[in-house]
Amino acid sequence: MTQTLRLGIAGLGTVGAAVVGMVARRAEALAASGRKVTVTAVSARDKSRDRGLDLSGFTWFDDPVALARSGDIDVFVELVGGADGPAKAAVEAAIASGKHVVTANKALLARHGAALAKAAEEKGVALAYEASVAGGIPVIKAIREGLAGNAVARVYGILNGTCNYILSRMEAEGLTFEACLKDAQALGYAEADPTFDVEGFDTAHKLAILTSLAFGVEIDADGVSVEGISAIQPLDLTMADELGYRIKLLGVAQATEAGIEQRVHPTMVAKASAIAQVMGVTNAVTVDADAVGELTLIGPGAGGKATASAVVADIADVAAGVLRPTFGRPVAALSAPRRVEMQRHEGGYYIRLTVHDRTGVAAGVATRMAEAGISIESIVQRRSAKAASSDPQGLSGQPVPLVLITYAATEGTVRKALSAIDGDGLLAEAPQLIRIERE
Amino acid sequence: MTQTLRLGIAGLGTVGAAVVGMVARRAEALAASGRKVTVTAVSARDKSRDRGLDLSGFTWFDDPVALARSGDIDVFVELVGGADGPAKAAVEAAIASGKHVVTANKALLARHGAALAKAAEEKGVALAYEASVAGGIPVIKAIREGLAGNAVARVYGILNGTCNYILSRMEAEGLTFEACLKDAQALGYAEADPTFDVEGFDTAHKLAILTSLAFGVEIDADGVSVEGISAIQPLDLTMADELGYRIKLLGVAQATEAGIEQRVHPTMVAKASAIAQVMGVTNAVTVDADAVGELTLIGPGAGGKATASAVVADIADVAAGVLRPTFGRPVAALSAPRRVEMQRHEGGYYIRLTVHDRTGVAAGVATRMAEAGISIESIVQRRSAKAASSDPQGLSGQPVPLVLITYAATEGTVRKALSAIDGDGLLAEAPQLIRIERE
Repeated sequence: MTQTLRLGIAGLGTVGAAVVGMVARRAEALAASGRKVTVTAVSARDKSRDRGLDLSGFTWFDDPVALARSGDIDVFVELVGGADGPAKAAVEAAIASGKHVVTANKALLARHGAALAKAAEEKGVALAYEASVAGGIPVIKAIREGLAGNAVARVYGILNGTCNYILSRMEAEGLTFEACLKDAQALGYAEADPTFDVEGFDTAHKLAILTSLAFGVEIDADGVSVEGISAIQPLDLTMADELGYRIKLLGVAQATEAGIEQRVHPTMVAKASAIAQVMGVTNAVTVDADAVGELTLIGPGAGGKATASAVVADIADVAAGVLRPTFGRPVAALSAPRRVEMQRHEGGYYIRLTVHDRTGVAAGVATRMAEAGISIESIVQRRSAKAASSDPQGLSGQPVPLVLITYAATEGTVRKALSAIDGDGLLAEAPQLIRIERE
Repeated sequence: MTQTLRLGIAGLGTVGAAVVGMVARRAEALAASGRKVTVTAVSARDKSRDRGLDLSGFTWFDDPVALARSGDIDVFVELVGGADGPAKAAVEAAIASGKHVVTANKALLARHGAALAKAAEEKGVALAYEASVAGGIPVIKAIREGLAGNAVARVYGILNGTCNYILSRMEAEGLTFEACLKDAQALGYAEADPTFDVEGFDTAHKLAILTSLAFGVEIDADGVSVEGISAIQPLDLTMADELGYRIKLLGVAQATEAGIEQRVHPTMVAKASAIAQVMGVTNAVTVDADAVGELTLIGPGAGGKATASAVVADIADVAAGVLRPTFGRPVAALSAPRRVEMQRHEGGYYIRLTVHDRTGVAAGVATRMAEAGISIESIVQRRSAKAASSDPQGLSGQPVPLVLITYAATEGTVRKALSAIDGDGLLAEAPQLIRIERE
């Protein structure tokens, strides 16, 4: 009979508390699938805080690093958070003292994943991180193991519930970004300082992890091009709807001849696609791979219980004696990342111009696009009912929206054309540019 | 350095040929993630057939059982098919001689899974079957490993691409079942004898496997209540659309107080649900579990390359030294199945009656439903334009459809009410009854 696997849990917030409960509740199933699992020690900032947990059976550590080094644990479960500071120190200490590590910390992985993976490899311990990407969706396992026979061409997903909640509400209720953000904050879906979520940095961290795993390259979080959703206007969602799209904040990693594009940006996705159906705080990941074609996973991206589900899945793997290379292959076998500049990205574009409502403006825009070699799939010019009634002949030159959908073009070309249009004095406001992602 | 893992592949149809190619193409990645993998021996019915494969490097066996016993292989890959006969004999022989087994054979698993799992367990070898359910979707891995921390409440899915193709076409083009079946046969999506697919038996086999895994019970394929799609009429799809539903053939396994319901039947699913978006030959599986909430996986359910993807994922697990209990826990720890009769199923129902177009018919139907304690959510009575113009006052008593959507009721109650309605002489044809599955 193998010995019981002893867990030390650092961080007793909603996820940590849920892990403690889940390990107890699923004790029989965990034992049946591999080995008995038990929590022996815990660490958190404040021992006295009431978490609704009976901690009397666990050894308490004030310092997560001391817990990580404790001889009474086999697995260090890091739920402290943060790319540096105590989380990093504790994970390093755990690996150095031969403990397996299970973490939900995307920032830590994105910043220090390669070095930590190397250390874990040298010590022969697991560094498992299913909970760091897309919460309860077992996407790390699906890519690393379920698609082992595949070469991945592209992986993309809705990786941030806050953004998807905001965009879903903006679309459903015609509200502004600011109004929806406020609601998201009131509901606890967004932080007091929402920058990290709404400007796309959280998605970028998660994407960098998926990229490393899916393409077998060293993690390169700084190589992700990042654009958030704060500039999206209700009109963009209305136009998207009319044109057969929805707007989602996607993280996309795509193999190209020049290297691997890593980009996070608001994206037009076809309304009939699986990913377009994903509303609210739900997450989704789609993988395009040579053998399987398209695989999509949809589920909860956050929340104590869902995240704990992923943490416990990693624990169960350790209990079953599974030890896999952190990013699917030994660190030495990961390729160096080759960054691809956004200017070289090729795809369809939604371009919303705000033009002066004058004769010949649409023709002027179309000419500049044609000069740049950009083909237009759709063009929509619409004046408000009010403008139409007060100025029936369109003589005022007031600002009106002009929306273009392009066929595939490079971002560099598109930006050059927009700059020419701006130079012609046709624009009343800076253009809105949203990339289209095809299935 | 661990030794190369040697595969013997029995069955060289589209899947087998794709596995041979994939193992060669992914050699470097497979070696990096665990251990070198190579095909050493193969078996098929006809050695001379041109498969576009160079077989000269492999030892040829006419008899899959002899291949299974060969000392030159470590893993026996069974792609022969069929619940009994050579597939069963060869898998038994492989296990008996200490070989790991990877199979895509749902019928074999559904019929003999428990006995084979026991034999594999006693010999300490893997019995892996990712490819047997939902083709390229790594659903076995997701449930067994990714949801290890969860108690599953329900698992349901579109598990047969043929049926989903037929229903998708019927819906999109208003065609009959028969017309779409013919097209499916012409396209190679349906067999010459389509019974196994369209009457739900294929889905039932796959469901039985998912049930065992998700609920930790012994496999019980005979306990699945099965109803196919051949009685679905274009009018049902039109009415579904009007009422906010789509019709899908689902396999559903659900924990109830009485035991685990296992049922395969045409099902009304809400149009906005993730599973309703799944069109054509694509498969999808949704798991409802206590921690993760709802998790949905969507991908290719069949095809040589997609199925080979799942086979190679299992091979990669063996190569990585992973050995898990076949159904997630040792056979001795699986519970005995408690079957639940369909009569006890509780849910919403779509009931399409063909009634004589006479005054008071709707009232008569509604009264019988009320007597049975069944609440009606919607009721739609519609006469054709032709009938309305030829008989504007509704005096002819000609057959017209009357569609009811009920709130949750037990199947026994619904059938009793329908029988009373029939007894009243209100029905011109047998009623159509389609179960509603809520998210």
